[in-house]
Amino acid sequence: MVVTKAVITAAGKGQRNLPLQNLIDSDGVEKSVLTILIEEVLRAGIDEICLVVRPGDEQAYASEAASHLSRLVFVHQQEPLGHGHAVYCARDFVGEQPFLHLVGDHLYVSRSEAGCAERLVRIASAEACAVSTVHATREHLLPYYGAIGGHRLRERTDLYRVETVLEKPTPTLAEQRLIVPGLRAGHYLCFFGMHVLTPTIFALLEQRIATAGGNGVTLAEGLADLAQREQYLALNMHDLRYDIGVKYGLMTAQIALALNGSDRDIVLARLLDLLAERELGRTAG
Amino acid sequence: MVVTKAVITAAGKGQRNLPLQNLIDSDGVEKSVLTILIEEVLRAGIDEICLVVRPGDEQAYASEAASHLSRLVFVHQQEPLGHGHAVYCARDFVGEQPFLHLVGDHLYVSRSEAGCAERLVRIASAEACAVSTVHATREHLLPYYGAIGGHRLRERTDLYRVETVLEKPTPTLAEQRLIVPGLRAGHYLCFFGMHVLTPTIFALLEQRIATAGGNGVTLAEGLADLAQREQYLALNMHDLRYDIGVKYGLMTAQIALALNGSDRDIVLARLLDLLAERELGRTAG
Repeated sequence: MVVTKAVITAAGKGQRNLPLQNLIDSDGVEKSVLTILIEEVLRAGIDEICLVVRPGDEQAYASEAASHLSRLVFVHQQEPLGHGHAVYCARDFVGEQPFLHLVGDHLYVSRSEAGCAERLVRIASAEACAVSTVHATREHLLPYYGAIGGHRLRERTDLYRVETVLEKPTPTLAEQRLIVPGLRAGHYLCFFGMHVLTPTIFALLEQRIATAGGNGVTLAEGLADLAQREQYLALNMHDLRYDIGVKYGLMTAQIALALNGSDRDIVLARLLDLLAERELGRTAG
Repeated sequence: MVVTKAVITAAGKGQRNLPLQNLIDSDGVEKSVLTILIEEVLRAGIDEICLVVRPGDEQAYASEAASHLSRLVFVHQQEPLGHGHAVYCARDFVGEQPFLHLVGDHLYVSRSEAGCAERLVRIASAEACAVSTVHATREHLLPYYGAIGGHRLRERTDLYRVETVLEKPTPTLAEQRLIVPGLRAGHYLCFFGMHVLTPTIFALLEQRIATAGGNGVTLAEGLADLAQREQYLALNMHDLRYDIGVKYGLMTAQIALALNGSDRDIVLARLLDLLAERELGRTAG
């Protein structure tokens, strides 16, 4: 299986201007979130990229990603009908191929030489099926994520066969349906925001959209159907991901990028300065 | 003297998308930099605001500051001819009145109940002349700022009569021309990014622009002329200002806003988590 296309969704409510935010990447270079995501995709060997945006946002994105413009295709999500619907909007761009999907409000910090998307694409290509990245996450964080239930593949430590997918499950529901044998107690496999999907997902999302009666459709609903239809795996990532859509998410991502990158010492010193300045201010005040 | 208008410049190279960056203000609410600056102006009792922007940037700014749109007037700086020229572009908006001027790439954290702009406007109104805010700054930071020389007013601890203004002076030049009696050794009064100016500045900038032959004109050049022409004071601020246009400037401003605001404890805990996570990552890796 060869993955040659990627879909980045950035049309969600409160998510629209996140790709335009500036951050300094772990290489010490200032970039927009959009550029960091595009580079993550390119590093995985993929250079046809679809951006799903709200109408009107295209120009700001295009000027932010000027150096990659030839690789980008913009698709509009006309109405905010959910993450599943946003992915569905990219069906004509994707066609009958597998594709990489990233969300526009997450950033990734790889703990190994290869990029997160790069490793995901490599494994999906080798297994020749859909693969979602997941991360063993403590129970109290379930309200923020989609989560899966399933069983570890016998011969692998980091790959699971997905049997169930639930969007932001309650702890009770998670305990009933998402226990994964071998995982630490109180932990669940929550989505890491990165997927390689087969075009089957579009037919499944289409059915969900048809029966939703104008309500939003989550990607988790489509993925739950996918798990019933064909081989669908989850790859447990030991890297870091940051949701920049939550409060202090951008600040947290920025500090994490810096502490894991070439500017580690500069940023540590800056943090100490700020803490000292604050204490000074308190004493003076 | 009554100040009823404000001019915010945001047309500089590398400065254009800074007002669109999201930060969480010290009240714990997520806002764009532009909104934070507008609120700083409103707090000073001013609600006619001119934004000097590059052509094409207007729409993004307008949608970012939607709730204040009725108070905003956009003026274009057609070419990047310097900070002085950007201020000059606002001359028709300002007319024959004093005005508050803020730069679009600085954020302010007040250490007292009143806002920084609020205190500046109060003092300029009482003194009935142009006043620039300054901050006693260590010598090694001179390459980043405009700086003034002058003498302290006899009856005041925080007000100086400005005699000289130099943009980013060398230490040698500063030592020759910007020594301020009574200031700690190795310190100079550098601009804090906030001014109340009289309309005289426009005539002075016009002369500088006419003789610049198409080169950029700094605001410092106009202010140096102003000091020769009329009473012009500097107010030494003991608050904090953050240049968000420098590397890690946004991150630094965000942490400072949080540590000085209502989310202090949340952010302190987050910083500790990040440092612990990094050590964990190192141990695991």
